[in-house]
Amino acid sequence: MLITKPVNEFLDELASNSPAPGGGSVAALSGAIGAALISMVGRLTIGKKKYADVQATMEDVVKKSEELRGKFSKLLDEDTAAFNEVMAALSLPKSSEEEQRKRSATIQEATKKATLVPLNVMQLCEQALHLAKTTAEKGNKNSVSDAGVAVLMLQSACAGAALNVRINLGSLEDQAFVRETSVSFKKILGNVEMLSRATLEQVEKSLG
Amino acid sequence: MLITKPVNEFLDELASNSPAPGGGSVAALSGAIGAALISMVGRLTIGKKKYADVQATMEDVVKKSEELRGKFSKLLDEDTAAFNEVMAALSLPKSSEEEQRKRSATIQEATKKATLVPLNVMQLCEQALHLAKTTAEKGNKNSVSDAGVAVLMLQSACAGAALNVRINLGSLEDQAFVRETSVSFKKILGNVEMLSRATLEQVEKSLG
Repeated sequence: MLITKPVNEFLDELASNSPAPGGGSVAALSGAIGAALISMVGRLTIGKKKYADVQATMEDVVKKSEELRGKFSKLLDEDTAAFNEVMAALSLPKSSEEEQRKRSATIQEATKKATLVPLNVMQLCEQALHLAKTTAEKGNKNSVSDAGVAVLMLQSACAGAALNVRINLGSLEDQAFVRETSVSFKKILGNVEMLSRATLEQVEKSLG
Repeated sequence: MLITKPVNEFLDELASNSPAPGGGSVAALSGAIGAALISMVGRLTIGKKKYADVQATMEDVVKKSEELRGKFSKLLDEDTAAFNEVMAALSLPKSSEEEQRKRSATIQEATKKATLVPLNVMQLCEQALHLAKTTAEKGNKNSVSDAGVAVLMLQSACAGAALNVRINLGSLEDQAFVRETSVSFKKILGNVEMLSRATLEQVEKSLG
Protein backbone atom coordinates (compact mmCIF):
# COMPACT_ATOMS: atom_id res chain seq x y z
CA MET A 1 0.00 0.00 0.00
CA LEU A 2 1.21 3.47 -0.93
CA ILE A 3 -0.18 5.07 2.24
CA THR A 4 2.14 3.05 4.51
CA LYS A 5 5.30 3.74 2.48
CA PRO A 6 7.84 6.23 3.79
CA VAL A 7 7.20 9.68 2.26
CA ASN A 8 10.55 9.69 0.39
CA GLU A 9 9.91 6.21 -1.05
CA PHE A 10 6.43 7.24 -2.16
CA LEU A 11 8.03 10.23 -3.91
CA ASP A 12 10.63 7.95 -5.56
CA GLU A 13 7.85 5.74 -6.88
CA LEU A 14 5.92 8.77 -8.10
CA ALA A 15 9.01 10.13 -9.89
CA SER A 16 9.77 6.79 -11.58
CA ASN A 17 9.05 5.98 -15.22
CA SER A 18 5.87 4.11 -14.31
CA PRO A 19 2.59 5.97 -14.97
CA ALA A 20 1.08 4.81 -11.64
CA PRO A 21 1.03 6.18 -9.03
CA GLY A 22 0.50 9.49 -10.82
CA GLY A 23 -1.63 12.61 -10.68
CA GLY A 24 -4.76 10.75 -9.58
CA SER A 25 -3.20 9.35 -6.42
CA VAL A 26 -1.52 12.70 -5.78
CA ALA A 27 -4.94 14.38 -5.85
CA ALA A 28 -6.21 11.95 -3.18
CA LEU A 29 -3.06 12.51 -1.10
CA SER A 30 -3.46 16.27 -1.37
CA GLY A 31 -7.00 15.84 -0.05
CA ALA A 32 -5.75 13.75 2.87
CA ILE A 33 -3.16 16.42 3.71
CA GLY A 34 -5.84 19.12 3.62
CA ALA A 35 -8.09 17.09 5.92
CA ALA A 36 -5.18 16.47 8.33
CA LEU A 37 -4.51 20.23 8.56
CA ILE A 38 -8.18 20.87 9.35
CA SER A 39 -7.96 18.31 12.17
CA MET A 40 -4.83 20.04 13.47
CA VAL A 41 -6.45 23.48 13.59
CA GLY A 42 -9.54 21.97 15.20
CA ARG A 43 -7.46 20.23 17.85
CA LEU A 44 -5.46 23.38 18.53
CA THR A 45 -8.78 25.12 19.21
CA ILE A 46 -10.39 22.49 21.45
CA GLY A 47 -9.68 22.94 25.16
CA LYS A 48 -8.61 26.60 24.84
CA LYS A 49 -10.51 28.93 27.20
CA LYS A 50 -10.67 31.68 24.58
CA TYR A 51 -12.52 29.33 22.22
CA ALA A 52 -14.81 27.65 24.76
CA ASP A 53 -17.94 28.73 22.84
CA VAL A 54 -16.89 26.84 19.67
CA GLN A 55 -15.70 23.70 21.48
CA ALA A 56 -18.63 21.53 20.32
CA THR A 57 -18.36 22.84 16.75
CA MET A 58 -14.65 22.03 16.64
CA GLU A 59 -15.17 18.56 18.05
CA ASP A 60 -17.64 17.93 15.26
CA VAL A 61 -15.21 19.35 12.68
CA VAL A 62 -12.38 17.09 13.84
CA LYS A 63 -14.60 14.01 13.86
CA LYS A 64 -15.63 14.71 10.28
CA SER A 65 -12.21 15.76 8.98
CA GLU A 66 -10.67 12.58 10.38
CA GLU A 67 -13.34 10.52 8.63
CA LEU A 68 -12.59 12.35 5.39
CA ARG A 69 -8.85 11.82 5.86
CA GLY A 70 -9.50 8.08 6.14
CA LYS A 71 -11.53 8.12 2.92
CA PHE A 72 -8.95 10.16 1.01
CA SER A 73 -6.20 7.80 2.22
CA LYS A 74 -8.06 4.79 0.84
CA LEU A 75 -8.60 6.53 -2.50
CA LEU A 76 -4.85 7.12 -2.82
CA ASP A 77 -4.40 3.38 -3.36
CA GLU A 78 -7.73 2.90 -5.14
CA ASP A 79 -6.77 5.38 -7.85
CA THR A 80 -3.58 3.51 -8.65
CA ALA A 81 -5.47 0.19 -8.58
CA ALA A 82 -8.14 1.57 -10.95
CA PHE A 83 -5.46 2.86 -13.34
CA ASN A 84 -3.72 -0.50 -13.33
CA GLU A 85 -7.03 -2.23 -14.13
CA VAL A 86 -7.46 -0.05 -17.21
CA MET A 87 -3.91 -0.92 -18.28
CA ALA A 88 -4.60 -4.65 -17.74
CA ALA A 89 -7.81 -4.40 -19.80
CA LEU A 90 -5.91 -2.67 -22.63
CA SER A 91 -3.50 -5.58 -22.83
CA LEU A 92 -6.20 -8.26 -23.13
CA PRO A 93 -6.02 -10.40 -26.31
CA LYS A 94 -7.91 -9.11 -29.37
CA SER A 95 -7.43 -11.77 -32.04
CA SER A 96 -11.02 -12.99 -32.44
CA GLU A 97 -14.21 -10.93 -32.60
CA GLU A 98 -15.26 -12.54 -29.32
CA GLU A 99 -11.99 -11.43 -27.68
CA GLN A 100 -12.36 -7.93 -29.07
CA ARG A 101 -15.88 -7.63 -27.69
CA LYS A 102 -14.77 -8.88 -24.29
CA ARG A 103 -11.70 -6.60 -24.24
CA SER A 104 -13.72 -3.55 -25.19
CA ALA A 105 -16.36 -4.22 -22.49
CA THR A 106 -13.64 -4.74 -19.86
CA ILE A 107 -11.91 -1.48 -20.87
CA GLN A 108 -15.21 0.40 -20.61
CA GLU A 109 -15.95 -1.06 -17.18
CA ALA A 110 -12.43 -0.32 -15.86
CA THR A 111 -12.54 3.22 -17.25
CA LYS A 112 -15.84 3.89 -15.47
CA LYS A 113 -14.21 2.84 -12.20
CA ALA A 114 -11.18 5.03 -12.98
CA THR A 115 -13.62 7.94 -13.45
CA LEU A 116 -15.56 7.35 -10.24
CA VAL A 117 -12.46 7.33 -8.02
CA PRO A 118 -11.39 10.93 -8.86
CA LEU A 119 -15.06 12.03 -8.88
CA ASN A 120 -15.24 10.72 -5.32
CA VAL A 121 -12.07 12.69 -4.46
CA MET A 122 -13.82 15.81 -5.78
CA GLN A 123 -16.93 15.14 -3.64
CA LEU A 124 -14.80 14.68 -0.52
CA CYS A 125 -12.93 17.92 -1.28
CA GLU A 126 -16.20 19.82 -1.30
CA GLN A 127 -17.16 18.29 2.07
CA ALA A 128 -13.73 19.06 3.53
CA LEU A 129 -13.86 22.66 2.34
CA HIS A 130 -16.99 23.27 4.41
CA LEU A 131 -14.98 22.17 7.45
CA ALA A 132 -11.98 24.30 6.42
CA LYS A 133 -14.30 27.31 6.21
CA THR A 134 -15.54 26.69 9.75
CA THR A 135 -11.99 26.37 11.14
CA ALA A 136 -10.85 29.54 9.34
CA GLU A 137 -13.84 31.46 10.70
CA LYS A 138 -14.05 30.08 14.22
CA GLY A 139 -10.79 28.21 14.91
CA ASN A 140 -7.62 29.24 16.74
CA LYS A 141 -6.42 32.46 15.09
CA ASN A 142 -2.77 31.45 15.61
CA SER A 143 -3.34 28.61 13.15
CA VAL A 144 -5.34 30.48 10.54
CA SER A 145 -2.53 30.15 7.97
CA ASP A 146 -2.74 26.36 8.43
CA ALA A 147 -6.47 26.54 7.64
CA GLY A 148 -5.43 28.53 4.55
CA VAL A 149 -2.94 25.85 3.48
CA ALA A 150 -5.69 23.24 4.01
CA VAL A 151 -7.87 25.13 1.52
CA LEU A 152 -5.00 25.33 -1.00
CA MET A 153 -4.35 21.57 -0.75
CA LEU A 154 -8.06 20.78 -1.16
CA GLN A 155 -8.29 23.14 -4.13
CA SER A 156 -5.43 21.42 -5.95
CA ALA A 157 -6.78 18.01 -4.93
CA CYS A 158 -10.12 18.86 -6.54
CA ALA A 159 -8.62 20.42 -9.67
CA GLY A 160 -6.18 17.51 -10.05
CA ALA A 161 -8.97 14.95 -9.65
CA ALA A 162 -11.03 16.92 -12.19
CA LEU A 163 -8.27 16.53 -14.81
CA ASN A 164 -8.44 12.77 -14.25
CA VAL A 165 -12.23 12.64 -14.49
CA ARG A 166 -12.09 14.54 -17.79
CA ILE A 167 -9.52 12.27 -19.40
CA ASN A 168 -11.51 9.16 -18.56
CA LEU A 169 -14.88 10.60 -19.57
CA GLY A 170 -13.40 11.21 -23.02
CA SER A 171 -13.01 7.50 -23.70
CA LEU A 172 -16.37 6.28 -22.35
CA GLU A 173 -19.20 5.12 -24.62
CA ASP A 174 -22.04 5.06 -22.07
CA GLN A 175 -23.46 8.51 -22.80
CA ALA A 176 -25.94 8.45 -19.90
CA PHE A 177 -23.03 7.87 -17.50
CA VAL A 178 -21.01 10.62 -19.18
CA ARG A 179 -23.89 13.11 -18.91
CA GLU A 180 -24.63 12.28 -15.28
CA THR A 181 -20.97 12.46 -14.27
CA SER A 182 -20.49 15.76 -16.12
CA VAL A 183 -23.37 17.31 -14.20
CA SER A 184 -21.93 16.31 -10.78
CA PHE A 185 -18.48 17.36 -11.96
CA LYS A 186 -19.53 20.91 -12.89
CA LYS A 187 -21.61 21.34 -9.76
CA ILE A 188 -18.72 20.33 -7.50
CA LEU A 189 -16.21 22.57 -9.34
CA GLY A 190 -18.51 25.56 -8.87
CA ASN A 191 -19.09 24.90 -5.16
CA VAL A 192 -15.40 24.25 -4.53
CA GLU A 193 -14.39 27.51 -6.19
CA MET A 194 -16.94 29.47 -4.16
CA LEU A 195 -15.98 27.83 -0.85
CA SER A 196 -12.24 28.19 -1.49
CA ARG A 197 -12.49 31.84 -2.41
CA ALA A 198 -14.65 32.71 0.62
CA THR A 199 -12.34 30.85 3.00
CA LEU A 200 -9.11 32.31 1.60
CA GLU A 201 -10.64 35.78 1.93
CA GLN A 202 -11.39 35.00 5.56
CA VAL A 203 -7.79 33.84 6.06
CA GLU A 204 -6.45 37.03 4.43
CA LYS A 205 -8.67 39.13 6.69
CA SER A 206 -7.42 37.34 9.81
CA LEU A 207 -3.78 37.76 8.73
CA GLY A 208 -4.44 41.49 8.39
CA MET B 1 13.00 13.09 10.02
CA LEU B 2 9.52 13.65 8.59
CA ILE B 3 10.56 12.70 5.07
CA THR B 4 11.38 9.10 6.06
CA LYS B 5 8.15 8.53 8.01
CA PRO B 6 5.37 6.43 6.48
CA VAL B 7 2.83 8.67 4.71
CA ASN B 8 0.02 7.73 7.13
CA GLU B 9 2.20 8.44 10.18
CA PHE B 10 3.23 11.79 8.72
CA LEU B 11 -0.47 12.58 8.28
CA ASP B 12 -1.20 11.49 11.88
CA GLU B 13 1.50 13.85 13.12
CA LEU B 14 0.16 16.65 10.94
CA ALA B 15 -3.38 16.11 12.26
CA SER B 16 -2.26 16.07 15.91
CA ASN B 17 -2.69 18.96 18.35
CA SER B 18 0.92 20.06 17.88
CA PRO B 19 1.43 23.15 15.67
CA ALA B 20 4.46 21.58 13.94
CA PRO B 21 4.60 20.06 11.40
CA GLY B 22 1.99 22.38 9.91
CA GLY B 23 1.25 24.40 6.79
CA GLY B 24 4.90 25.34 6.21
CA SER B 25 6.11 21.75 5.97
CA VAL B 26 3.05 20.88 3.88
CA ALA B 27 4.02 23.60 1.39
CA ALA B 28 7.50 22.06 1.04
CA LEU B 29 5.99 18.58 0.65
CA SER B 30 3.58 19.83 -2.00
CA GLY B 31 6.60 21.22 -3.87
CA ALA B 32 8.38 17.86 -3.62
CA ILE B 33 5.29 16.08 -4.98
CA GLY B 34 5.09 18.54 -7.89
CA ALA B 35 8.79 18.00 -8.69
CA ALA B 36 8.33 14.20 -8.54
CA LEU B 37 5.46 14.37 -11.05
CA ILE B 38 7.62 16.44 -13.42
CA SER B 39 10.32 13.76 -13.19
CA MET B 40 7.73 11.08 -13.95
CA VAL B 41 6.44 12.84 -17.07
CA GLY B 42 10.05 13.48 -18.17
CA ARG B 43 10.97 9.83 -17.70
CA LEU B 44 7.84 8.66 -19.53
CA THR B 45 9.00 10.80 -22.48
CA ILE B 46 12.66 9.76 -22.56
CA GLY B 47 13.37 6.75 -24.78
CA LYS B 48 10.10 7.03 -26.76
CA LYS B 49 10.64 7.15 -30.55
CA LYS B 50 7.86 9.70 -31.00
CA TYR B 51 9.66 12.11 -28.68
CA ALA B 52 13.23 11.51 -29.90
CA ASP B 53 13.70 15.21 -30.75
CA VAL B 54 13.07 16.33 -27.15
CA GLN B 55 15.15 13.58 -25.53
CA ALA B 56 17.99 15.91 -24.46
CA THR B 57 15.53 18.53 -23.18
CA MET B 58 13.73 15.93 -21.08
CA GLU B 59 16.96 14.54 -19.67
CA ASP B 60 17.84 18.05 -18.56
CA VAL B 61 14.33 18.54 -17.09
CA VAL B 62 14.55 15.32 -15.06
CA LYS B 63 18.04 16.16 -13.77
CA LYS B 64 16.80 19.54 -12.55
CA SER B 65 13.45 18.35 -11.19
CA GLU B 66 15.19 15.64 -9.17
CA GLU B 67 17.56 18.26 -7.73
CA LEU B 68 14.57 20.41 -6.81
CA ARG B 69 12.80 17.44 -5.24
CA GLY B 70 15.85 16.90 -3.04
CA LYS B 71 15.81 20.54 -1.97
CA PHE B 72 12.06 20.58 -1.26
CA SER B 73 12.43 17.36 0.77
CA LYS B 74 15.08 18.97 2.98
CA LEU B 75 12.92 22.05 3.50
CA LEU B 76 10.08 19.85 4.75
CA ASP B 77 12.11 19.14 7.89
CA GLU B 78 13.80 22.55 7.97
CA ASP B 79 10.47 24.34 8.19
CA THR B 80 9.42 22.35 11.23
CA ALA B 81 12.88 22.88 12.80
CA ALA B 82 12.66 26.64 12.16
CA PHE B 83 9.19 26.79 13.71
CA ASN B 84 10.39 24.88 16.77
CA GLU B 85 13.30 27.32 17.15
CA VAL B 86 10.87 30.26 17.26
CA MET B 87 8.83 28.42 19.90
CA ALA B 88 11.99 27.71 21.94
CA ALA B 89 13.00 31.38 21.71
CA LEU B 90 9.54 32.47 22.91
CA SER B 91 9.92 30.35 26.03
CA LEU B 92 13.28 31.82 27.04
CA PRO B 93 13.33 33.50 30.49
CA LYS B 94 12.43 37.20 30.63
CA SER B 95 12.91 38.20 34.27
CA SER B 96 15.81 40.64 33.96
CA GLU B 97 16.34 43.35 31.33
CA GLU B 98 19.37 41.41 30.14
CA GLU B 99 17.24 38.28 29.68
CA GLN B 100 14.54 40.26 27.89
CA ARG B 101 17.10 41.72 25.48
CA LYS B 102 18.59 38.31 24.79
CA ARG B 103 15.16 36.69 24.35
CA SER B 104 13.98 39.37 21.97
CA ALA B 105 17.14 39.11 19.82
CA THR B 106 16.84 35.31 19.71
CA ILE B 107 13.18 35.53 18.68
CA GLN B 108 14.04 37.98 15.89
CA GLU B 109 16.85 35.76 14.61
CA ALA B 110 14.68 32.62 14.71
CA THR B 111 11.80 34.41 12.97
CA LYS B 112 14.11 35.53 10.15
CA LYS B 113 15.08 31.90 9.61
CA ALA B 114 11.42 30.87 9.72
CA THR B 115 10.77 33.46 6.99
CA LEU B 116 13.65 32.39 4.76
CA VAL B 117 12.60 28.71 4.67
CA PRO B 118 9.17 29.35 3.06
CA LEU B 119 10.70 32.09 0.85
CA ASN B 120 13.10 29.42 -0.39
CA VAL B 121 10.14 27.09 -1.04
CA MET B 122 8.60 29.87 -3.16
CA GLN B 123 11.83 30.31 -5.16
CA LEU B 124 12.05 26.57 -5.84
CA CYS B 125 8.38 26.52 -6.94
CA GLU B 126 9.14 29.16 -9.57
CA GLN B 127 12.09 27.12 -10.84
CA ALA B 128 10.02 23.92 -10.90
CA LEU B 129 7.17 25.61 -12.78
CA HIS B 130 9.54 26.40 -15.67
CA LEU B 131 10.22 22.66 -15.88
CA ALA B 132 6.51 21.81 -15.60
CA LYS B 133 5.83 24.16 -18.52
CA THR B 134 8.42 22.38 -20.65
CA THR B 135 6.97 18.94 -19.83
CA ALA B 136 3.41 20.09 -20.58
CA GLU B 137 4.51 21.57 -23.92
CA LYS B 138 6.96 18.93 -25.10
CA GLY B 139 6.48 15.85 -22.92
CA ASN B 140 4.53 12.63 -23.46
CA LYS B 141 0.95 13.66 -24.28
CA ASN B 142 -0.43 10.60 -22.44
CA SER B 143 0.87 12.13 -19.22
CA VAL B 144 -0.19 15.72 -19.79
CA SER B 145 -2.71 15.56 -16.93
CA ASP B 146 0.16 14.58 -14.60
CA ALA B 147 2.04 17.69 -15.74
CA GLY B 148 -1.16 19.58 -14.90
CA VAL B 149 -1.32 18.09 -11.41
CA ALA B 150 2.37 19.01 -10.97
CA VAL B 151 1.46 22.65 -11.69
CA LEU B 152 -1.44 22.53 -9.21
CA MET B 153 0.79 21.12 -6.46
CA LEU B 154 3.47 23.76 -7.11
CA GLN B 155 0.85 26.50 -7.12
CA SER B 156 -0.48 25.49 -3.72
CA ALA B 157 3.07 24.96 -2.44
CA CYS B 158 3.93 28.54 -3.40
CA ALA B 159 0.71 30.07 -2.07
CA GLY B 160 1.03 28.07 1.17
CA ALA B 161 4.64 29.13 1.65
CA ALA B 162 3.59 32.72 0.93
CA LEU B 163 1.11 32.63 3.85
CA ASN B 164 3.98 31.55 6.11
CA VAL B 165 6.33 34.25 4.83
CA ARG B 166 3.66 36.88 5.49
CA ILE B 167 2.96 35.81 9.06
CA ASN B 168 6.63 35.90 9.98
CA LEU B 169 7.34 39.20 8.23
CA GLY B 170 4.66 40.76 10.42
CA SER B 171 6.67 40.19 13.59
CA LEU B 172 10.10 41.25 12.32
CA GLU B 173 11.76 44.51 13.36
CA ASP B 174 14.58 44.63 10.80
CA GLN B 175 12.83 46.84 8.24
CA ALA B 176 15.56 46.45 5.60
CA PHE B 177 15.10 42.67 5.73
CA VAL B 178 11.31 43.06 5.57
CA ARG B 179 11.53 45.35 2.52
CA GLU B 180 13.98 43.12 0.68
CA THR B 181 11.96 39.98 1.39
CA SER B 182 8.70 41.65 0.36
CA VAL B 183 10.22 42.58 -3.01
CA SER B 184 11.33 38.98 -3.75
CA PHE B 185 8.02 37.71 -2.44
CA LYS B 186 5.90 39.82 -4.81
CA LYS B 187 8.14 39.11 -7.79
CA ILE B 188 7.90 35.35 -7.26
CA LEU B 189 4.11 35.42 -6.76
CA GLY B 190 3.70 37.28 -10.06
CA ASN B 191 5.96 34.91 -12.00
CA VAL B 192 4.35 31.83 -10.47
CA GLU B 193 0.88 33.00 -11.40
CA MET B 194 1.93 33.72 -14.98
CA LEU B 195 3.75 30.39 -15.38
CA SER B 196 0.92 28.39 -13.79
CA ARG B 197 -1.76 29.97 -15.91
CA ALA B 198 0.20 29.48 -19.16
CA THR B 199 0.95 25.84 -18.35
CA LEU B 200 -2.58 24.96 -17.28
CA GLU B 201 -3.87 26.50 -20.53
CA GLN B 202 -1.43 24.28 -22.41
CA VAL B 203 -2.70 21.25 -20.48
CA GLU B 204 -6.34 22.15 -21.23
CA LYS B 205 -5.48 22.52 -24.93
CA SER B 206 -3.82 19.10 -25.00
CA LEU B 207 -6.79 17.47 -23.23
CA GLY B 208 -9.07 18.96 -25.90
